[in-house]
Amino acid sequence: MEAFELPLATAAAEISARRLSPVELIDSVLRRIENTEPEINAFAHVCGDRAREQAAVAEKEIAAGRYRGPLHGIPLGVKDLYDTAGIPSTSSSEVRAEHVPDADAVAVQRLVDAGMVMVGKTHTHEFAYGGRTHTTRNPWDTDRIPGGSSGGSGAALAAGSCMVGMGTDTAGSIRIPANLCGTVGLKPTYGRTSRRGVASLSWSLDHVGPLTRNVVDCAHVLRVLAGHDPLDPASVDVAVPDYAAGLTGDVRGLRIGVPTNFFFDHVQEDVEASVRAGIEVLVGLGAEVREVTIPYADQVLAAEWGIVMPEAAAYHEESLRTKAELFRPDTRIKLEVGALILATDYIKALRIRTLMQRAWRKLFDDVDVVVAPVQPFPAPLVDDMEVTWPDGTVEPVDLAMVRLTSPANLTGLPTLALPTGFDVDGLPLGMQVTGRPFDEATLLNLGTAYERATDVVGRIAPVARADAPA
Amino acid sequence: MEAFELPLATAAAEISARRLSPVELIDSVLRRIENTEPEINAFAHVCGDRAREQAAVAEKEIAAGRYRGPLHGIPLGVKDLYDTAGIPSTSSSEVRAEHVPDADAVAVQRLVDAGMVMVGKTHTHEFAYGGRTHTTRNPWDTDRIPGGSSGGSGAALAAGSCMVGMGTDTAGSIRIPANLCGTVGLKPTYGRTSRRGVASLSWSLDHVGPLTRNVVDCAHVLRVLAGHDPLDPASVDVAVPDYAAGLTGDVRGLRIGVPTNFFFDHVQEDVEASVRAGIEVLVGLGAEVREVTIPYADQVLAAEWGIVMPEAAAYHEESLRTKAELFRPDTRIKLEVGALILATDYIKALRIRTLMQRAWRKLFDDVDVVVAPVQPFPAPLVDDMEVTWPDGTVEPVDLAMVRLTSPANLTGLPTLALPTGFDVDGLPLGMQVTGRPFDEATLLNLGTAYERATDVVGRIAPVARADAPA
Repeated sequence: MEAFELPLATAAAEISARRLSPVELIDSVLRRIENTEPEINAFAHVCGDRAREQAAVAEKEIAAGRYRGPLHGIPLGVKDLYDTAGIPSTSSSEVRAEHVPDADAVAVQRLVDAGMVMVGKTHTHEFAYGGRTHTTRNPWDTDRIPGGSSGGSGAALAAGSCMVGMGTDTAGSIRIPANLCGTVGLKPTYGRTSRRGVASLSWSLDHVGPLTRNVVDCAHVLRVLAGHDPLDPASVDVAVPDYAAGLTGDVRGLRIGVPTNFFFDHVQEDVEASVRAGIEVLVGLGAEVREVTIPYADQVLAAEWGIVMPEAAAYHEESLRTKAELFRPDTRIKLEVGALILATDYIKALRIRTLMQRAWRKLFDDVDVVVAPVQPFPAPLVDDMEVTWPDGTVEPVDLAMVRLTSPANLTGLPTLALPTGFDVDGLPLGMQVTGRPFDEATLLNLGTAYERATDVVGRIAPVARADAPA
Repeated sequence: MEAFELPLATAAAEISARRLSPVELIDSVLRRIENTEPEINAFAHVCGDRAREQAAVAEKEIAAGRYRGPLHGIPLGVKDLYDTAGIPSTSSSEVRAEHVPDADAVAVQRLVDAGMVMVGKTHTHEFAYGGRTHTTRNPWDTDRIPGGSSGGSGAALAAGSCMVGMGTDTAGSIRIPANLCGTVGLKPTYGRTSRRGVASLSWSLDHVGPLTRNVVDCAHVLRVLAGHDPLDPASVDVAVPDYAAGLTGDVRGLRIGVPTNFFFDHVQEDVEASVRAGIEVLVGLGAEVREVTIPYADQVLAAEWGIVMPEAAAYHEESLRTKAELFRPDTRIKLEVGALILATDYIKALRIRTLMQRAWRKLFDDVDVVVAPVQPFPAPLVDDMEVTWPDGTVEPVDLAMVRLTSPANLTGLPTLALPTGFDVDGLPLGMQVTGRPFDEATLLNLGTAYERATDVVGRIAPVARADAPA
């Protein structure tokens, strides 16, 4: 086994015990990037020399007894939406081709302070405004999209090109690529993590969070990321537990809500079967199942787009006026439409959201989590634009990708995406687990229980390998 | 002295000691209403018989030893924007001429539960959308407006036609009439009091609060009004102190911020002099003065109107479509303009508000309160539409009236309006005191100190009296 293949926790233990040097680990990951990039193109920018220097510094610190903790020396990929000091931060857009920030985003700064070594900036769907990530391919099948908008982080992580990939999630952009690339992905509660220094798509729906290979990795990263930032207006001052220390894997008595509407409608059979099998695993571990009805289900997409479109148009207003031709056509059209939306319509969307938030909170009187599919299908082919359901309904793939993820953005509730298996073509399948506000601990504990009981979490795609299946 | 003239606290003490019957008090107030209404027309609806019945019930309860506290048997005027069970609640608009609710607004219910007796519904500027209250005249000079939108409550209170007048404040609608009618008025912190059952003007700026004659009255009412309402999405769960019990009147060491910009610009000389004299009174009692700079001062009105106009248009959208001709022309035009505003512009206004909120919070690192004028002038004549300032600037009166009050709506900070004296024509002058979020207690304590040291708080206008000056 090469170093890049190690689970994060194993790599951390080896580093801490000085049996593995951060330099050796980073070198292994950089070689893996070199091998996989021609096929998946997950990175907008690889900073190999800088990463090697930082790994050397980490090595010295650790040798001198200054081990910072489980993220010290661990390779990190950061979505190009995040500002990174001295390194191009383009949001995968020509509009920001020249943007080299002076300072790291708060989230990056916190991870760097914890000792992480950034190996590169990962591609995003332009300005996070879509679920495809046009630049990048899925490591499980390079004819397919990795999902998005954090598609570069999802692809890099699944390929073994980093051990943590930072993402953002406005309509599903962490959970979609996590699901389609077979990784873990966490959208924390709205206000849990600072968005300062990250390009905005929709300020009232944007979330910062990680994609990881295993659940405990996610717990370590969230511990570092979480916490109040008085300069992010959405940030909330809520105590940050030691998530990793709390992972008992005991789910006895946990009440799992299983939706009777919305989440299993227009969902591919093998996706549904995999999620229901995942729920059975948890029941086998002592969890209980209760049926729940998803409130305001028929207004999810109207509310989501009614908020995203004008907020995105407001954020990009200046660029749209002065350099509209630099946007991709699909991005530009969405921004231009958003600029035509009336305030009264936006206000109606905000109102629906308020009602939805209230109704979802009430739902958690009876259950501790809600488990559901993340995507209606496994990774689409690059040219798939529409999906036809058995009842004859034709749905645009781009809308279908955000259909099941948007409720957690509108409600702000924390949601964990977990792999649950593979379809007949070897494409990853998965489920998402949504919990109460600021109760990420319960989600991570459920994830731990599930991960221990199964063998699907933490796999690396056999892309660009001698032993890859034909 | 007739019963209607008693300060609330005195009336309460007399009632508690069974030396004054609620029936006697309500009768006195109803006679006063009969005498003053022909001149001021403060009420949209007087419910004399019902009030007499309720007073009789209160009398019996108290005689039976079931005294509910300092509001028991006290006469209340409620702005017609509030729902009141079985009583027309028209928002002073033809659009709601037929609206007779089944239930009281939460605020009304709480006051009724505390034993208050509603004598009538007070006029509002139509749907609270303006500062004039066209129906009503100022009891200190009936050629002048009472201010608005809670003009009926201000006028009734100043005339002695009730002891507490409920108001709402979206751009100053409690503080403007309090100031122009010479009463106390409190706009609590955003989220402190429930707005449920009150017609909305602008949901993200609307506040529910009282106008009273004395400061301690305000403390008693706030104690009852304040508290979490899970069904008002803006409501915040913050403990409610016993405000009245905390009124020491000690302001030694209190740091008063006095603005060097904005609040004293384009303000009539006698208004400024009266506010500065008020500050001197507080300094004489041991308070300290510090200069403060008001942040984003030049964007106050753009942010206020950029939020109010589309939110009001969204709230009235259905009525505007089906019965536009029933609105007053001024209301209708504002609603129609609001319906044309783009979401991106509304979002810009929301952003300015966020920056403003943050900057104002920081301002309170150095001071405990900010003291400033409420209105740039005393009560305008009914036909005054413009004011010309010494530098030649011409300003619409309707914009000038909300210029100094809007910051507290945008920031959500609690603000107390206090009378400070009278101009040469006998028109009331006053100041407003703004504090930290949920720190109404400090404002009320300052008000108590000021009230004890002066003789201007609590006066009743000599309208419709044999002994009135010619």
